[in-house]
Amino acid sequence: MEKHNNGNSPGTLYVVGTGPGSELYMTGAAAKALETAETIIGYKTYLDLIPSFLTKEKEVISSQMMKEVDRCRESLTIADSGKKVALVCGGDPGIYAMAGLVYELARENDYSCAIEIIAGLAAINSCAARLGAPLMHDFAAVSLSDLLTPWELIEKRLRAVAAADFVTAIYNPKSKKRTEQIVKTREIFLEHREPKTPVGIVTAATRENEKIAITTLDNMLDNEITMQSTVIIGNSQSYTWNDLIITPRGYRGKYSL
Amino acid sequence: MEKHNNGNSPGTLYVVGTGPGSELYMTGAAAKALETAETIIGYKTYLDLIPSFLTKEKEVISSQMMKEVDRCRESLTIADSGKKVALVCGGDPGIYAMAGLVYELARENDYSCAIEIIAGLAAINSCAARLGAPLMHDFAAVSLSDLLTPWELIEKRLRAVAAADFVTAIYNPKSKKRTEQIVKTREIFLEHREPKTPVGIVTAATRENEKIAITTLDNMLDNEITMQSTVIIGNSQSYTWNDLIITPRGYRGKYSL
Repeated sequence: MEKHNNGNSPGTLYVVGTGPGSELYMTGAAAKALETAETIIGYKTYLDLIPSFLTKEKEVISSQMMKEVDRCRESLTIADSGKKVALVCGGDPGIYAMAGLVYELARENDYSCAIEIIAGLAAINSCAARLGAPLMHDFAAVSLSDLLTPWELIEKRLRAVAAADFVTAIYNPKSKKRTEQIVKTREIFLEHREPKTPVGIVTAATRENEKIAITTLDNMLDNEITMQSTVIIGNSQSYTWNDLIITPRGYRGKYSL
Repeated sequence: MEKHNNGNSPGTLYVVGTGPGSELYMTGAAAKALETAETIIGYKTYLDLIPSFLTKEKEVISSQMMKEVDRCRESLTIADSGKKVALVCGGDPGIYAMAGLVYELARENDYSCAIEIIAGLAAINSCAARLGAPLMHDFAAVSLSDLLTPWELIEKRLRAVAAADFVTAIYNPKSKKRTEQIVKTREIFLEHREPKTPVGIVTAATRENEKIAITTLDNMLDNEITMQSTVIIGNSQSYTWNDLIITPRGYRGKYSL
């Protein structure tokens, strides 16, 4: 077993979800972990969203995008040396973020620091609230990034949830280089749902540059979709009202509304 | 159009997600909405979890379970009369909670108060964090309650996500009267996944009576499952380590961990 901690008692790694962006949507537990930490590590965009009083007079390590493995390894190494470290994730560390990778690295390399996952509001929570109530029935989340997952599996999953009428949240819909997956996704859903099915596109939820578009499956590609967007496709019962998307739970059939 | 507001300017209804239970997991935005509200309405269990300094010297209306339609209607009526009202939901109001019903009632009955949805940590976020990192790949949420949804549709959805290898969060797995749906769910997943597939059962996440069980698809029914439980079934790649469930994202195939 490789030694990482140079004889010190190992410390703690907090994997902290800071939510969608605005400080208002951070939990008390996340703020407390950042306050407790001696070292704060994260991707620059997310670090910049943390209120400065939580980071001042601390070691702050800003990491590049795409360097997730390095970032997690560095966090574990510093925590193993005896420090309290906060690894910052936008959204929820447990949803398409760093929680899993931290555990995978800890397991493969026998790190012995304590690891605590602090949940945060994921895009699925914050974008849904900005759109009205689109997720109110069974839903699925699918990432279109084929960097770590073969497209065949992504397509299989899209077909399954499209056919079974799940409200579907599309993560990582598009990047500069990766533009065709969202086109294909729309085609798959059109095989199972009406062209007028409501679609919401939320970019940079709760941040200064937030953009919200309410559109349809038919017209969704006429709207700007970026790396920071989450796309929510309604189910067969979803409708729009006052620029909101509402998916009924089924009360109307059972109660007089 | 029925008049609700007796001539006053209509107020605001905040539909507030207070998260899993512990005050620590509430967002600043939720606390602010409760602070701003003149009237706070909710199901007793959730009201009891709110710190008392946020409710004191306010009108607090405690509602019974199963009375969701009445609760939402009363919230809208009071807000329409000109007041600031907070309708409290445990978890996230947008996920199997009150956000959709509030909008449905507002639309059907021409309420004119402003409505604001304040997202909170849903069971899917908080339970995942307590279990390790089970949701790290594409996932689905399915409620087993057949009160408002025909069982045939629920079963169709379970079959779809079981076959397409989604990590699956089961909401409302069981109640005193409704015990067979979780038995059938296990059978459906066993048609597609190994008996040793990791399953996590979290009951009353982050509350005093929290219980966490890490088990397998084969043995899951040997554990206590209640109305307050969320059951997370891993995908074909999920594994257990140190009493945690980890679903790899796929870094291992691409990078040296």
